Amino acid sequence: MTGPSAGGLLEGSLEIVHVGIEAVALAAEATGAHVTRVDFRPPAGGDPARIRALSELLSGPAARAIDAANARALARLVASRPHLVGIGVARDVIPGMADDLFLHAGPPISWDRMCGPLRGAVIGGLLHEGRARDVAEASRLAASGAIRFEPCHHHDAVGPMAGLVTPSMPVFVVEDRAAEGAGGRTYCTLNEGLGKVLRYGAFSGEVLARLRFMQTELAPVLAAALALRGPVDLKHLMAQALQMGDEGHNRNRAATSLLFRDLAPAIVRATEDRERAARVLEFVNGNDHFFLNLSMPMAKCMLKAAEGEPLSSLVTVMARNGTDFGLQLGSMPGHWFKGPAQMVRGLYFPGYTEADANPDIGDSAITETAGIGGFAMAAAPAIVQFVGGTAADAIETTREMGQITAGANPGFAIPQLGFTGTPTGIDVRLVEERGVLPSINTGIAHREPGVGQVGAGLVHPPWEAFHAALLAFSEHVRAVGPKDRG
Amino acid sequence: MTGPSAGGLLEGSLEIVHVGIEAVALAAEATGAHVTRVDFRPPAGGDPARIRALSELLSGPAARAIDAANARALARLVASRPHLVGIGVARDVIPGMADDLFLHAGPPISWDRMCGPLRGAVIGGLLHEGRARDVAEASRLAASGAIRFEPCHHHDAVGPMAGLVTPSMPVFVVEDRAAEGAGGRTYCTLNEGLGKVLRYGAFSGEVLARLRFMQTELAPVLAAALALRGPVDLKHLMAQALQMGDEGHNRNRAATSLLFRDLAPAIVRATEDRERAARVLEFVNGNDHFFLNLSMPMAKCMLKAAEGEPLSSLVTVMARNGTDFGLQLGSMPGHWFKGPAQMVRGLYFPGYTEADANPDIGDSAITETAGIGGFAMAAAPAIVQFVGGTAADAIETTREMGQITAGANPGFAIPQLGFTGTPTGIDVRLVEERGVLPSINTGIAHREPGVGQVGAGLVHPPWEAFHAALLAFSEHVRAVGPKDRG
Repeated sequence: MTGPSAGGLLEGSLEIVHVGIEAVALAAEATGAHVTRVDFRPPAGGDPARIRALSELLSGPAARAIDAANARALARLVASRPHLVGIGVARDVIPGMADDLFLHAGPPISWDRMCGPLRGAVIGGLLHEGRARDVAEASRLAASGAIRFEPCHHHDAVGPMAGLVTPSMPVFVVEDRAAEGAGGRTYCTLNEGLGKVLRYGAFSGEVLARLRFMQTELAPVLAAALALRGPVDLKHLMAQALQMGDEGHNRNRAATSLLFRDLAPAIVRATEDRERAARVLEFVNGNDHFFLNLSMPMAKCMLKAAEGEPLSSLVTVMARNGTDFGLQLGSMPGHWFKGPAQMVRGLYFPGYTEADANPDIGDSAITETAGIGGFAMAAAPAIVQFVGGTAADAIETTREMGQITAGANPGFAIPQLGFTGTPTGIDVRLVEERGVLPSINTGIAHREPGVGQVGAGLVHPPWEAFHAALLAFSEHVRAVGPKDRG
Repeated sequence: MTGPSAGGLLEGSLEIVHVGIEAVALAAEATGAHVTRVDFRPPAGGDPARIRALSELLSGPAARAIDAANARALARLVASRPHLVGIGVARDVIPGMADDLFLHAGPPISWDRMCGPLRGAVIGGLLHEGRARDVAEASRLAASGAIRFEPCHHHDAVGPMAGLVTPSMPVFVVEDRAAEGAGGRTYCTLNEGLGKVLRYGAFSGEVLARLRFMQTELAPVLAAALALRGPVDLKHLMAQALQMGDEGHNRNRAATSLLFRDLAPAIVRATEDRERAARVLEFVNGNDHFFLNLSMPMAKCMLKAAEGEPLSSLVTVMARNGTDFGLQLGSMPGHWFKGPAQMVRGLYFPGYTEADANPDIGDSAITETAGIGGFAMAAAPAIVQFVGGTAADAIETTREMGQITAGANPGFAIPQLGFTGTPTGIDVRLVEERGVLPSINTGIAHREPGVGQVGAGLVHPPWEAFHAALLAFSEHVRAVGPKDRG
């Protein structure tokens, strides 16, 4: 785009120098004006078809209806009250779960396209379920078609990293207890800890022994304690943790501590064998990420409440299977918009480098989708050390996410930002208009099956997914939105 | 002070306009020059004798030796490693404790000058010890001289608010486990919780029942757990809590949570009666200030390590008994410099106003003396809400305390300040030079005995104590410091 020429001015054509909200420039361009942008970042990636779609969605006849739909969706998200109500066995409590079904993180994927850590988790899952006796047998079985693979998200579940859920695994049951729209349930396995763990693709004897302990001791003890104590208000707990240095994705120390304090007396009262109770307390105390597997189904529960507005442009799912990234919009639940899973910029454990890293994997980006994780970075300055950043960078990340979100969640107040809420409700229009991608905090898995975690850091989703979602949403609005175009 | 006159300039006298470090102006004035200060704040309160003393201490022949003594004292404070090593009965473990001795917060005070909440605590202590059957008998006994009253600080102990320690009370035992200078021990009672509690001057049946529970269940259960678990590194725990929104005085939620997590498995293993273990866990979980009574003896332990440098101008004790504020310098341990206890600026519980408030009370200012509490305000932005402040105000408070301290404690890094340590080691010279008083976070007690806590807020010590300490330190330096005055 070139600047205005003296000739152009003399000829009377409209020349505009634009600094500010892109929608204004788009609207002006739509009238045929020539707009010169300062600090130019092409909206919608500069693609003419997407620019037209975006202009229409931001200032066309449906724009107000979209804004109103987003406001309603955000209000329901903010009003939701996810509670931990119990622990059950996946095959008994997850809708549609079956004995031949394994759930995994991210959008749908077949065995042949699965990345190393997801394959490793599937192998570990088959060993854990007693469906195979060794890795070779498990690999053959996984490739045979005898096991069906479906995304956790297709079953109201979420899983960190590989996100594997097998039929016999214990899962947290989270329920929305808001006065209105209550009853929505979401599910997540219990967190194994760090290092060599199934969700990072490890399947050694140590990993399998831990899964057995979780099934036979951890889950029953916690379930009995929960039954005695009653439902735990996860949003209330998360709100406190955000004032204690957590962001609910890569840092969960405060929330884990608060949950531990809350449950410990009931654990002791509900467990006759004191040594068994002590082992469970020790296991939870030994894992500062224990609450991640509750912040995730909490986030999923909040986002389920936001789904179903036919004209909403808000993102309600972001998930990765280690090969593909996929997102969903609240107006089109179940439709995946995909792009390649990206590499994570981060800090590696000693002995590992980026060459060892698998691309981005896990359903844990559900936290960012719900306005915590990377979006609440300002609350957790300790995290930016992963990528050599400062407390000021953390605040800047949260401010930047405010550019692409429909509003803020007053229930999640950040002290470092004068107790304003976390930016919440990613609007695919704003992402495309501002040219700003969501910031996601995440762990890094080794690219080979059987190894485990090698680091942690920050990642952005691929543009392809947002571009595809924008065009599909534009079509969707033409189909279901206001028809008056004048 | 008037500006320079044209006549003065013609006559050749030296005229200086000074903006910056006050010592420079003082040094110039000492040579007879006329100094005009911009943003004028008179050093040493503008008193000629104190100005002379301050000038001498900052730029006289002993100045370097004082700086070096302070650096050594600060290094020992930073290197100290206070550990919680056990729980004992006051009469058995506190040096010099006796059956007719009650310890209290702040500098020495007799019954007739004691404020309401301290009298209330003494009455409660006598009822608790079975020395009196009712309030009237307890008051007569307290006034009779049959009970001796001495400061906690005279026995290496500290106590929040009234700070009452009676012979049969259980106390935490904290020990310095630094490689060098190890072995120093400090003591503090266990925290009762909020509201109607002895330390705020309440002595109802509910208060006394809780003291009995603490003596017969809480202390034995925790002591057994500690014996099983081994010593707890309090400084390590505090360092983590400072990254989780605590400042270690008015906010102790994170440290309490981390300690709870750490001790719970041992509590379960060490306690045969599960219900008893559950009651103890419930009690600690119900009190976010439980760790205050550990951050205080931790701070006292660090400051004991800093004592004993004959030329150090660092403050090693700040304490209030509700009538007087007193401080001590590390070079003159045991010598109190006093002024009237001040009113606290803060937020009151519903139904109470400043008219109900007692002046500042408690040994808890030992936390600020050791570089946490108000000095670590930047770490705990949630606290400034007590006085209507913002996160920026919190950072400013910590920065301001950096003006009056000898250095920083790298062991206590604050994320909000780019992981620099908390400002530590109050230098009485800098307080007088900069005209900046320490900022102390504190609770507010009702002025009448028997009521309890009515609020929380911020307070500054009285200038009188610092003025007196400056002059005494100046005399002390003349007596023991370098004699060469040329």
